[in-house]
Amino acid sequence: MILALDFGGTKTRAAIYDHDLRLLHRAEMLTRPAEGPAAVLPRLIELGRSVIPAGASLDAIGVSAGCARAYTGVIDNAPTLPGWVQVPLAEQLSGAFGLPVRMENDANLAALAEYHRGAAQGCDPAVYLTLSTGVGGGVVIGGELFRGWRGVAFEPGHLLVEAGAGGYATLEGRASGPALAAAARDLLNRSADPSPLRELDEIDGKAVAEAARLGDPLALEVVEGAGRALGVGLLNVVHLFNPQCVVLGGSVATLGDLLLGQARAVLAERLIDPLFNGPDLIRLSDLGDDGVLLGAALLAKHS
Amino acid sequence: MILALDFGGTKTRAAIYDHDLRLLHRAEMLTRPAEGPAAVLPRLIELGRSVIPAGASLDAIGVSAGCARAYTGVIDNAPTLPGWVQVPLAEQLSGAFGLPVRMENDANLAALAEYHRGAAQGCDPAVYLTLSTGVGGGVVIGGELFRGWRGVAFEPGHLLVEAGAGGYATLEGRASGPALAAAARDLLNRSADPSPLRELDEIDGKAVAEAARLGDPLALEVVEGAGRALGVGLLNVVHLFNPQCVVLGGSVATLGDLLLGQARAVLAERLIDPLFNGPDLIRLSDLGDDGVLLGAALLAKHS
Repeated sequence: MILALDFGGTKTRAAIYDHDLRLLHRAEMLTRPAEGPAAVLPRLIELGRSVIPAGASLDAIGVSAGCARAYTGVIDNAPTLPGWVQVPLAEQLSGAFGLPVRMENDANLAALAEYHRGAAQGCDPAVYLTLSTGVGGGVVIGGELFRGWRGVAFEPGHLLVEAGAGGYATLEGRASGPALAAAARDLLNRSADPSPLRELDEIDGKAVAEAARLGDPLALEVVEGAGRALGVGLLNVVHLFNPQCVVLGGSVATLGDLLLGQARAVLAERLIDPLFNGPDLIRLSDLGDDGVLLGAALLAKHS
Repeated sequence: MILALDFGGTKTRAAIYDHDLRLLHRAEMLTRPAEGPAAVLPRLIELGRSVIPAGASLDAIGVSAGCARAYTGVIDNAPTLPGWVQVPLAEQLSGAFGLPVRMENDANLAALAEYHRGAAQGCDPAVYLTLSTGVGGGVVIGGELFRGWRGVAFEPGHLLVEAGAGGYATLEGRASGPALAAAARDLLNRSADPSPLRELDEIDGKAVAEAARLGDPLALEVVEGAGRALGVGLLNVVHLFNPQCVVLGGSVATLGDLLLGQARAVLAERLIDPLFNGPDLIRLSDLGDDGVLLGAALLAKHS
């Protein structure tokens, strides 16, 4: 059996998989990282133990963590885990369970899961982008995660999608959930158009997405702007990686064609050669949140 | 011995290398592609034979060609070879010399040469960019050329370096030789500033570069604009590939620090993490035009 842990800044999930990577059991807890590693680690171990069936023997452990160089096994410099400095999490878990532990960052694991079991099966290279509170991603080349020189390769959230006299904007600054909310607030201030968003005390990405799904023109304008920015980012990714597919996951990607219409239009207009494109180039994830856990199990199984 | 052929739209070069890849002899001719494959091919074979020392035995042949999918061995869709449609050049050369022939596009071969014998030695990943009449490049990952799904990966000339309300511009549209010339003509029209460029009947990239080297403020402004665009393109490449180095070649790159000052400033300001950067990240090629021939020899030797 394989234990997968998804160690996040808000919550932490544990899941147990059999050797065919069927999910058998799962559990979750609030991480409360502010309590510090000494308090969190025992709870993390307990959560992991809680999903292992009685009498079952564990073969491998895979861990997802939200820091760029998680593959080192050390938590450091993670934006969602302030105060966690040089914490050797993999080593500590390995000691507790008596097994080797592989760790990797969440977006890379989601990419791995899409490649082995999701929308990117059979694709080489396979690119994965997650559009959520932040924008991240991973690339699988020849079946292996592409890590680059120091393990920080593929940060698509930091792609410039606007540049020039009007200043700079990144893909994360245009197509994340908070970016949708900020663009909606800006548009509400600049226009007098009616919108159900005006009734809300606070606007977040989810509210904008819901309004867009219901056909609110203002929300649709915001989503289309994000779609164009996504198109510019995808254009650059596709011209550099010539991927067989790009899988989009994360909460913002659930907007589907509302978002992708504009993105696909930018690609159709500006890709230099049909060899880069295909009707199925841009796809939506079908693994959802479980992609990260499945990726952690895959990492452990293949190690 | 290894025969390397650099088959270009204007001229074609042949060189013979020994097994340590020392250049022994070389020759060149005008390609005159308009005469068609049936006329050019015998001349190409003759040029190749002319560099083989009497009595020497040839072991392998590598060919560079300026089309994206040259690795297939077939010339097709090459912008500098109009009318050359589905020409099986590798097969024809293989028949003539009685040896297997490997073919690859010129920018990829230059990248391979930089990795094995040039400024990118020991770098993984190693990125190469050529800034010349066009902008192209190649990436070596784990010692192997990265080709992508359909062999067209890494077209950095088509990276968007300006996007937004002001419209779109590509890296090739801002940092190639013709782009420097166009920017200089534009600036001369819009300003009354004196510049030695005003005396010229025709302005090309070389003239702008020369004026910049001599300190002409107008030419320097043009070069600095190209440097900023290069910085935006490099920023995106570095955030996606996390390369250990990026080697710049081509005539425009010979501007050196005049061009790189602004590019490095963009990187210093906008790279999200020092892990992406290093004092030696951006380097100049030291192989010059011979990189392509050496890359063809390397391709043949390693095949």
